[in-house]
Amino acid sequence: MIYGVILNDAASLQKIGSLDEAPYKGAPQAPVLYIKPANTRVADGATVKLPDGANSVEVAATVGLVMGRAAARLSPATALEVVGGVVLAGDLSLPHASYYRPAIREKCFDGSLPVGEVKPPFDLSKLVLRTEIDGQLVEERSLADLIRGPARLLSDVSEFMTLNQGDVLLLGVSYMAPQAKAGSRVKISADGLGSLHFTIAQGA
Amino acid sequence: MIYGVILNDAASLQKIGSLDEAPYKGAPQAPVLYIKPANTRVADGATVKLPDGANSVEVAATVGLVMGRAAARLSPATALEVVGGVVLAGDLSLPHASYYRPAIREKCFDGSLPVGEVKPPFDLSKLVLRTEIDGQLVEERSLADLIRGPARLLSDVSEFMTLNQGDVLLLGVSYMAPQAKAGSRVKISADGLGSLHFTIAQGA
Repeated sequence: MIYGVILNDAASLQKIGSLDEAPYKGAPQAPVLYIKPANTRVADGATVKLPDGANSVEVAATVGLVMGRAAARLSPATALEVVGGVVLAGDLSLPHASYYRPAIREKCFDGSLPVGEVKPPFDLSKLVLRTEIDGQLVEERSLADLIRGPARLLSDVSEFMTLNQGDVLLLGVSYMAPQAKAGSRVKISADGLGSLHFTIAQGA
Repeated sequence: MIYGVILNDAASLQKIGSLDEAPYKGAPQAPVLYIKPANTRVADGATVKLPDGANSVEVAATVGLVMGRAAARLSPATALEVVGGVVLAGDLSLPHASYYRPAIREKCFDGSLPVGEVKPPFDLSKLVLRTEIDGQLVEERSLADLIRGPARLLSDVSEFMTLNQGDVLLLGVSYMAPQAKAGSRVKISADGLGSLHFTIAQGA
């Protein structure tokens, strides 16, 4: 199972603007989580076919922590001991205006999570992620501005949910990430994590 | 993987009242889906410990379709051919005021989906589900008022998501289902599906 979190970086919170009005009524106090089920995961080199009626997709570069063993109720101080690997991911979402309803169709369509090669864990606190679409750099983001870093996020999520070996926790995605269209070739890369390539294809 | 849907019955839509204002702006046009990951599933007879700080839980009786084989892009006319079984489930949620943020903690805590014994498929269109808490009947609902019946729901969900063998699609839960407290003993039953028992326990 793959879990992710939105609004986990200062830049995204700034971009989304005030969260004081309904329905949000304030910035999130707990991680705002979502799930990417097994049907979403595809490997490096995949061609991702968009669902019917979709012509473009948001491409959010992120990094996943891969669980080396099952765990629950982890403290921030020791949470990272259970991480068996780290991995690049391209979290694809159909553009959607609001988070007020669980966006399952928009975030969980087949192939909506290309995932790279799993690497041994290392310090991610200053990692820079680069996204290129058709050879052009469209986003560069640093994990230095995460609100919950890897250890804190893992601790918070495992407080109520047992994570199993092989589960992946994605560290956060940019709000309104760059969009790719059908036909686009995407590359996501980061020092120490290699690169991840995929192609977006038109649906029926 | 287990998928569910909210607001899929006339009684729930009536109870939630007008959806014309923000953030909803109208009744749902597509199934409003959620996911119950593997950590939520427990068997008949389980004791479900509530997460820290929670004292009560909503108990929503529902029925799951168990996939007999992997499938995608099913038409309503033939969707039920892939169903290998049907099963009672008690979908537990911590009470939460709004659906505007994905309610992962509230719906996905460990043990939040007691599931009964899988039975061979049969016609569910008039099935009546009964929920008893501490021996008292607290809800009786009929699947006759589903907005999307089993075939239509399975078709709509499989339009964008491949379902695997053993995946479960829950047919819908009541809005503001009856609540059970720590110490309560719950029984859910339906003709042809037997009964499902579980106990709610206080968290730390």
